[in-house]
Amino acid sequence: MSWKDLVRRVDPYVPGEQPTEQHIIKLNTNENPYPPAPGVQEILRDMDAGQLRLYPDPAAGLLTEKLAAEYRVKKEQVFVGVGSDDVLAMSFLTFFNGSAPLLFPDVSYSFYEVWAECFRIPYRKIPLTEDWRIDPKDYETENGGIVFPNPNAPTGIALPIGDIRKILDANRDVVVIVDEAYVDFGAESALPLLAEYDNLLIVQTFSKSRSMAGIRIGFAIGNEELIRCLSDVRYSFNSYTMNRPSILAGTAALEDRTYFEKTVGKIINTRDSVRDELEEMGFVCLDSSTNFLFVTHPDIPAAELFRILRGKGIYVRYFALPRIDNYLRITIGTAKQMQVLLDTLRLILREKS
Amino acid sequence: MSWKDLVRRVDPYVPGEQPTEQHIIKLNTNENPYPPAPGVQEILRDMDAGQLRLYPDPAAGLLTEKLAAEYRVKKEQVFVGVGSDDVLAMSFLTFFNGSAPLLFPDVSYSFYEVWAECFRIPYRKIPLTEDWRIDPKDYETENGGIVFPNPNAPTGIALPIGDIRKILDANRDVVVIVDEAYVDFGAESALPLLAEYDNLLIVQTFSKSRSMAGIRIGFAIGNEELIRCLSDVRYSFNSYTMNRPSILAGTAALEDRTYFEKTVGKIINTRDSVRDELEEMGFVCLDSSTNFLFVTHPDIPAAELFRILRGKGIYVRYFALPRIDNYLRITIGTAKQMQVLLDTLRLILREKS
Repeated sequence: MSWKDLVRRVDPYVPGEQPTEQHIIKLNTNENPYPPAPGVQEILRDMDAGQLRLYPDPAAGLLTEKLAAEYRVKKEQVFVGVGSDDVLAMSFLTFFNGSAPLLFPDVSYSFYEVWAECFRIPYRKIPLTEDWRIDPKDYETENGGIVFPNPNAPTGIALPIGDIRKILDANRDVVVIVDEAYVDFGAESALPLLAEYDNLLIVQTFSKSRSMAGIRIGFAIGNEELIRCLSDVRYSFNSYTMNRPSILAGTAALEDRTYFEKTVGKIINTRDSVRDELEEMGFVCLDSSTNFLFVTHPDIPAAELFRILRGKGIYVRYFALPRIDNYLRITIGTAKQMQVLLDTLRLILREKS
Repeated sequence: MSWKDLVRRVDPYVPGEQPTEQHIIKLNTNENPYPPAPGVQEILRDMDAGQLRLYPDPAAGLLTEKLAAEYRVKKEQVFVGVGSDDVLAMSFLTFFNGSAPLLFPDVSYSFYEVWAECFRIPYRKIPLTEDWRIDPKDYETENGGIVFPNPNAPTGIALPIGDIRKILDANRDVVVIVDEAYVDFGAESALPLLAEYDNLLIVQTFSKSRSMAGIRIGFAIGNEELIRCLSDVRYSFNSYTMNRPSILAGTAALEDRTYFEKTVGKIINTRDSVRDELEEMGFVCLDSSTNFLFVTHPDIPAAELFRILRGKGIYVRYFALPRIDNYLRITIGTAKQMQVLLDTLRLILREKS
């Protein structure tokens, strides 16, 4: 025997590239092209590093209370973690301990399968419909829990709240997680359903609409008992996950709703006009309620286009996976970055024809 | 059935109190009384918050490389996480998947049992000897892994490197974790043994000797294959755990070895003189190689002393657990704070007699 026989074998998730070259146009990991709210810079600049000698508040009270006020829930209904990946991983560990399979869509966020494998949770992937949609009827089957993103990723398509309600009505006895990482860019949040469904957990993040992927803040909102279960498992894992800078910076970001609405609005406008121009070039774009577009072109394979763009310093995301291996996921950058992308695509298509 | 039937039930760890009142003398969670190295304040003040819109480097390369240079190992031998609790939890999940029990001392860090329960790892606690020591002979039994702190906590007693070697020699086929959270205060690190034992994992933290409990940085050093296994599980859990401020602040702290040695030296000096004075008052103090003292007094029960001190605004740690329920764990603060503690204890003892 060797220690190697006792190692948990996993097939690790491969994150999108993080090139450090300055000239790259980085449209591959759905980051926000705008900086965080100005208050974030101020609070970090004025932070007393001397306070770092102390453990942070394990409950991240400042941030939790601010989130509760922002989303009009009790602070006992809010859970924070190191990005929504941390919140989702803790939720999987906490809520999906049954023998019936966890259900999630295929195509969807690829981490769901990674966590299920890592925690030995039985699971079943439910294919999206032909037109890339989640059909609530497909979730009327025995299961140990349900998770789906809304809007879905990498398709970008939002599920109407009526359909979320249908999924919840058919599944009262398991936890249903709605992963709203991109919800601020145009989908309807399930928050109004919280009062009716004690098994609904909503997960959001500061990484996209709040321009703070680098600080790692995600959060969950649900009924108090759900959040207490989640916190108990969290405290069994790591009592102090949110460091002092993230608690302070997150709180500062929430102070500035005007900035938040302005930057989100700019991204939505850019997305919609880029979509029009792409369609003029012959691209097929799925309906996006997110800060990215999921596109394909009849004349040029996505893998080839991905490589050509990369060679020209424009990074987008390509997934060599069934059904989506002829699509590119393009993050919405600044209007200027997108103009460079569009001009480059026009040149590439001209050369092909 | 209800969703509640599928919830992972845990008995969560209760962290030490984090009072926010300014006048409290806080000697209860082994924080460093001195601020982090001055470079930490500078790097945070000058940090460009605009960069927070981007995901951090998933490998935390800057910090990993700096740690590798500091401890003279390859960067592939270093793993970083959100405090040593995160590093240890990930290690448990990665390495302890056997059916034989994980072994750890009793008395020891109480989180080991919490993780074993949370991850359903079979375990057996090995009592310390009568004189509070880890006896390597007790670890010559079938097991699925071993973990112990060196120095041990909350006893504060260090294990000589020869004894660590004995444990490793008797256990070549499982991972042996030496949790060196307090090692910088006077114990010998197992680092020199790394070249001989591919199953040795050493875990350290920035929370104690580097005065940065509030930033959450822990790290592990081991052979490259061990670290690769750990990273694979980490990436299956959460790709981006170290936020940008912690990567920068951690790197800055490592730049300043002089400051580190000076503050650690001050704490050791304070500890040794406080110990002398406590013994003069009749306290029995275990040998400490840490930044705390574990003490008992024949004339006053520890629980009572804990309450009296608390009433006077001095927080120390009391564990209502078998064998140690007549001991207090007292963190070493500044010389001035410790003088207040000593004067207060003298008064309390005088009133008792």
